[in-house]
Amino acid sequence: MANRPLTESDQLAKLQTLIGELLKGNDFYRARLEEAGIDASVSSIEDFTSKMPFTTKMDLVWDREEFEPYGSNLTYPLSDYTRYCQSSGTTRGPLPWLDTKDSWSAMLDCWDKVYEAAGVGTEEVIFFAFSFGPFLGFWTAFDAATRRGNLSIPGGGLSSKARLQAMVNHNATVLCCTPTYALRLGEMFAELDDDDAADYQLKKIIVAGEPGGSIPEVRKRISELWEGAEIFDHHGMTEVGPVTYEHPDKPLSLCIIEGAYLAEVIDRETHKEVEPGKKGELVLTTLTRTACPLLRYRTGDLVEKTYHDAPGSEEPVFCLNGGVLGRVDEMVVIRGVNVYPTAVEKIIRGFPEVEEFQVIQTTRQSMAELEIGVEAGPSASPDLAERVAKELADAFTLRIPVRLVERGSLPRFEFKSKRWIKQ
Amino acid sequence: MANRPLTESDQLAKLQTLIGELLKGNDFYRARLEEAGIDASVSSIEDFTSKMPFTTKMDLVWDREEFEPYGSNLTYPLSDYTRYCQSSGTTRGPLPWLDTKDSWSAMLDCWDKVYEAAGVGTEEVIFFAFSFGPFLGFWTAFDAATRRGNLSIPGGGLSSKARLQAMVNHNATVLCCTPTYALRLGEMFAELDDDDAADYQLKKIIVAGEPGGSIPEVRKRISELWEGAEIFDHHGMTEVGPVTYEHPDKPLSLCIIEGAYLAEVIDRETHKEVEPGKKGELVLTTLTRTACPLLRYRTGDLVEKTYHDAPGSEEPVFCLNGGVLGRVDEMVVIRGVNVYPTAVEKIIRGFPEVEEFQVIQTTRQSMAELEIGVEAGPSASPDLAERVAKELADAFTLRIPVRLVERGSLPRFEFKSKRWIKQ
Repeated sequence: MANRPLTESDQLAKLQTLIGELLKGNDFYRARLEEAGIDASVSSIEDFTSKMPFTTKMDLVWDREEFEPYGSNLTYPLSDYTRYCQSSGTTRGPLPWLDTKDSWSAMLDCWDKVYEAAGVGTEEVIFFAFSFGPFLGFWTAFDAATRRGNLSIPGGGLSSKARLQAMVNHNATVLCCTPTYALRLGEMFAELDDDDAADYQLKKIIVAGEPGGSIPEVRKRISELWEGAEIFDHHGMTEVGPVTYEHPDKPLSLCIIEGAYLAEVIDRETHKEVEPGKKGELVLTTLTRTACPLLRYRTGDLVEKTYHDAPGSEEPVFCLNGGVLGRVDEMVVIRGVNVYPTAVEKIIRGFPEVEEFQVIQTTRQSMAELEIGVEAGPSASPDLAERVAKELADAFTLRIPVRLVERGSLPRFEFKSKRWIKQ
Repeated sequence: MANRPLTESDQLAKLQTLIGELLKGNDFYRARLEEAGIDASVSSIEDFTSKMPFTTKMDLVWDREEFEPYGSNLTYPLSDYTRYCQSSGTTRGPLPWLDTKDSWSAMLDCWDKVYEAAGVGTEEVIFFAFSFGPFLGFWTAFDAATRRGNLSIPGGGLSSKARLQAMVNHNATVLCCTPTYALRLGEMFAELDDDDAADYQLKKIIVAGEPGGSIPEVRKRISELWEGAEIFDHHGMTEVGPVTYEHPDKPLSLCIIEGAYLAEVIDRETHKEVEPGKKGELVLTTLTRTACPLLRYRTGDLVEKTYHDAPGSEEPVFCLNGGVLGRVDEMVVIRGVNVYPTAVEKIIRGFPEVEEFQVIQTTRQSMAELEIGVEAGPSASPDLAERVAKELADAFTLRIPVRLVERGSLPRFEFKSKRWIKQ
């Protein structure tokens, strides 16, 4: 383990304060803390992680079903809560989530870190290609940007064409959107005349909402479409908030915002913390979102733990090597081979002439099978499907059928993509 | 004129401070103030209005064309501006508008007044059926609601059905939207089963963006669709901000937020202030939006000036009787008769069985003519078109052809409606 006394003492102090607040007012966690024998005098991070049980997404779902609609994980009276978001994740419908002014503000602090790490100055103009609905998405990014002083252009309710136009009208230098949408807008941008394209000032794209931003091939394609713009990945979740930032010194890696999150990476079987360089499930404790906290939350995200000696940081920083690698529960076993959707995407995105793709997962005699459709761009050679299939076969030692589909026939996505279809 | 020493001395003090700031940093107004011989020592409101020339929308358009893209009406350095909005009004494309944190906050203060007058407590849940794009719309309403402590549900990027569902999920008691959209959602609400409808807690609807909220017939129809919900009208503009509120003691009338706006109602010909009870064009000076102010701005809104002795207010309040009656420049002369679109809407909305309508304005031999299409609901009698035509003829001493069109064939609107088509 890395020796990080300053980080740990800061996190422990915040954890103690948090636990004190929860024991006073949070029904959901008071019972759990008391049962675990933990109070505000918890003596170390290890003391906490060894005693405190995990919180799972189903715990949250059941709690909201028992105490409709917002559940009992609320530290303060309901009248203190002003912001509403919902996650899109469960099969039982959206999971509602409430914040107070203070907990919302704590999330804006996290975005300050994301912008700072990406070198976004307060004089820069940021465009938000986001629909400003009930998903957390870029709401906190937007509010943080206005709070720190950036001119912030909201792109709700606009067509992609109108968004492109707004970006040039306002000399936007930074774009915030999902990687899928960065590709989509980027394809439209790439079709502009050289004269029109020359008016764009875009330098940086901060992507979030999907793993794509840390997949080198996706990132490369976005950057190429946008004439070399720098790509910064970020990841967050409605339940926990904005968790990570990308430092230019450590590309393709997500650094935990450790002033706000206590991160663990655990082995799914033993539930023990993995060693640096190993993969496991990301478990998060929110240290500053006191009004609606999560203690040891099983995120379901598959990550590889590492420590990064960041310049300007006195101690090594907890990082996720390669970003979020996938969902621990999304792995598919195909004829005995473990296949993660992100690994498949990574290979297909290695072919820039593939404009869009779709993976159909079927089950035959209780066995999962995959079939992939790809759309070829105008520059593609006729054997594109064969070449993709060969690359997949090399990577997985597995034959996965790949076929060409008509250009423009596959769905395009604005927010999170849904390219993996289970039938 | 009403005698209102307290109001006038408050407004004068704010005006003096504003003028001092503008002379320091605002290129657009410094020249105009100097030419008019006005400085921070301006001695009275009358001194100001007698010397200061009007600002027109075309002044703003030309200024932005000369100093692209944001114009020279900026009191502080561009880097201080964080919020962007645009008006949809001109034929030369949207008019961009920037705010600083302080000027944005001053607009939120105005919304505090709107909510307070409507009796919206901070414990109430407010749903915003709004797309959160670049139009000012309900952005300030939303930010003000979260700032004062209301749980505020953003409805960006959602279908009307999903919005209705969200309103019941969150026990929303207040809805903010345009009158057109209140009708549209209301029609969907009215089609719910009694059991489903019983779960709704909606008590109040604050409408803005169009004149409908002060047209008794529109208001009545919205309220009926929503089972007797109270309707509160509000009006604002991107260029000036949120201007008015409706007090329950003075329904069908919009009260000026006089702590933030100096209002005049002028005769279009003589440019003199009209007497109470008379109609004219609303002219506004923004007293608190210092970063992007307007002095004596010709709003183009046709209003009737009145003073209201509001309980709890020490002095009479400047009100617009009947709300915004129309646009001074929207009046159409049909065979010698002055016809305002709002007057036509008022008559048609007197027939609750009309579900939607459209007015086609054509020109024959340089003369304007109107023709109206109406959609009849299931309860309408076959002679609906004739009855509407008769009512119009009685009101305008003018025969305007009215015909029935197929149900569902006319466009529905989410934000501002466009029912008046010029061909």
